[in-house]
Amino acid sequence: MTHPDPLRGFPEKEFEERVERAQKLMQESSLSALLLCTEAEVRYFTGFHTPFWQSPTRPWFLILPMDGKPVAVIPSIGEASMKETWIDDIRTWSSPNPSDEGVSLLSNTLIEILPIASNPSNNGLEIGLPMGNETHLRMPLLDFAKLKELIHPHSFTDSTEIIKSLRGVKSEAEIYKISKICEIVSNGFASLPDLLKVGMTEREAFKAFRMKLLELGADEVPYLVGATGSGFSDIIKQPSDRVIQPGDLVMFDTGSTYDGYFSDFDRNMAFHFADDKAKYAYQIVWEATEAALKLASPGKTTTDLWAAMGSVLETESNRNESVGRFGHGLGMQVTEWPSNTNNDATVLQEGMVLTVEPNLTWGDGHIMVHEENFVVRADGIELLSRRAASELQIIS
Amino acid sequence: MTHPDPLRGFPEKEFEERVERAQKLMQESSLSALLLCTEAEVRYFTGFHTPFWQSPTRPWFLILPMDGKPVAVIPSIGEASMKETWIDDIRTWSSPNPSDEGVSLLSNTLIEILPIASNPSNNGLEIGLPMGNETHLRMPLLDFAKLKELIHPHSFTDSTEIIKSLRGVKSEAEIYKISKICEIVSNGFASLPDLLKVGMTEREAFKAFRMKLLELGADEVPYLVGATGSGFSDIIKQPSDRVIQPGDLVMFDTGSTYDGYFSDFDRNMAFHFADDKAKYAYQIVWEATEAALKLASPGKTTTDLWAAMGSVLETESNRNESVGRFGHGLGMQVTEWPSNTNNDATVLQEGMVLTVEPNLTWGDGHIMVHEENFVVRADGIELLSRRAASELQIIS
Repeated sequence: MTHPDPLRGFPEKEFEERVERAQKLMQESSLSALLLCTEAEVRYFTGFHTPFWQSPTRPWFLILPMDGKPVAVIPSIGEASMKETWIDDIRTWSSPNPSDEGVSLLSNTLIEILPIASNPSNNGLEIGLPMGNETHLRMPLLDFAKLKELIHPHSFTDSTEIIKSLRGVKSEAEIYKISKICEIVSNGFASLPDLLKVGMTEREAFKAFRMKLLELGADEVPYLVGATGSGFSDIIKQPSDRVIQPGDLVMFDTGSTYDGYFSDFDRNMAFHFADDKAKYAYQIVWEATEAALKLASPGKTTTDLWAAMGSVLETESNRNESVGRFGHGLGMQVTEWPSNTNNDATVLQEGMVLTVEPNLTWGDGHIMVHEENFVVRADGIELLSRRAASELQIIS
Repeated sequence: MTHPDPLRGFPEKEFEERVERAQKLMQESSLSALLLCTEAEVRYFTGFHTPFWQSPTRPWFLILPMDGKPVAVIPSIGEASMKETWIDDIRTWSSPNPSDEGVSLLSNTLIEILPIASNPSNNGLEIGLPMGNETHLRMPLLDFAKLKELIHPHSFTDSTEIIKSLRGVKSEAEIYKISKICEIVSNGFASLPDLLKVGMTEREAFKAFRMKLLELGADEVPYLVGATGSGFSDIIKQPSDRVIQPGDLVMFDTGSTYDGYFSDFDRNMAFHFADDKAKYAYQIVWEATEAALKLASPGKTTTDLWAAMGSVLETESNRNESVGRFGHGLGMQVTEWPSNTNNDATVLQEGMVLTVEPNLTWGDGHIMVHEENFVVRADGIELLSRRAASELQIIS
């Protein structure tokens, strides 16, 4: 009756391995538990996957003990969905309940789970919580203050590095999903010359592209930005009523998803004809990606990628500092750690999925961005996005 | 050349009025500034609208001084986009910069903006920051700790109530956008009998519905959950490979958007025929919404709505407590304050946009939810969703 897609979901073993890796790192950092409350982290350890996180009303918590499976402390509206995952210990409260939005249940559960009995002399144990760059606490600050009081003398300590190192290296199952969405989006970009034409508005172009991506198999298109015109400096833009003209450039950048994993790359094209400066800018950013893609392999760093792209851009054009980096990690979020910058220096490892995304300033303050997605393999990289044409494509 | 849609964007006057209302409330609470860092709040006061918030890398800040326009403290990648809004004072840093991710720039700007000179004897001024229910801090906790040190002796105090009261009452321009997306989604639901059929998988059904909503004019479909089967208890579910059977129910619940404003309502239908219990459950939740829609008007409370729905459900069936409320506010987020609960007691005012969303348990632990969207008017309500049929619709 059903024909399950092998690319959907994960075998339980995958979650067991993630938890084991986390617990090893927790032990090395002398953490007695890990507390997580954001979508990507809860999904990473449970498989719990719902767009319900967009509702700001209810916090969701996951506790990783030192041993054994994670414990979910969640609003009862999510119980049926969480029961479909590999998690057994699910504790719920009826939410919304502003006077105690899960805080008592969470603190009681934490104290129950902490290995207090085996540390009788310990005045307080440390609970890991991501507090560093690219993280945030998805619960009200006033509730967090209450929680800290309730678990005293135990306390929270930053565990960003643990999460970053775990999520940074993807499993083959994760890579398949990213590969799948990159293929779908590559097909979507290939269809643009048939989809777009002079006389359309930007809104019509966005709509046509978004629908095409879904038609081709994307589950969702959560991130779509773009612009048209002789050039543009806003690269995170939503569509306007502007009508596409002959000679215009068009840029689309999309983070589309398949089974909860993102692609993230853009394409630039021109309508009917293109300015020589635009063609030249395109070639330079294309060559910058080429330099990084040739260099990338285990042992190189994100800063090596940055330097490789920078050296192409530097000799040929004005580098633009506004984007702040030349690419980043990619996975359950449209951008993840690490960043390709002048001092990030993350060492590339097999299984890391990254983007390279050089950008330059050209013409009258315009920005040109070019992006590809790849996974680091033993002997170099495997490209996940279909390589862009080396010359600016013209839509006739 | 362009044909601007009057429903797109807001006149500058709208932002001026929002800021004036905020500054009046700030004065009443003796706040010297307001700090905001989440998507809805920054957009509310600026019009800054981009899906870029999905990237967790960079924090974004907006400061409301006691007088005058807001000041944006943002990553330079957003400068071009922020310049398109009514904001003049835009301060940027090149991000990512993990060693100082905007913290110095933000603290310097806050101290510059605080009316310190006019309060020479004051040991510390209070800066409002939303810290209460349904809020979170979108910056790393470690950076927030640094920020608190840098602005000492000034400090942050909760300002949730200010934001809640401002955003809770919608302007006519906001109501138009919600009305527009509710109309589009109503048309989408009306098309379901033509779109869905026995033999499709849930995934195919989701895809068909998502594409139809875009075709009909939704900008995006950020929230889409649903289920099929003889009944279901998971109401925040993503699609599976399950094949639709005769006698199945289908439920779709979508938060789609138009110009950044959400609809949020669901519909239940059955394929070929329906179980009498399902038909009866449907009628009860329909009657519960009817009771609330008849009652709602300025001066009544969210708890009155809750009681009206509860009394219909109580006499006829088992109430289900897992959802925790019978509807909520609606606007820039798929759910907003307030909640229709037994103790929320928010007084309804003209311009509030709300959902009513009763749910009950029926059959073998199944849940049936029914939802409508409306705006409170002087003499009652104006329905924004097209009223569901009073009896369970059968797809033949």
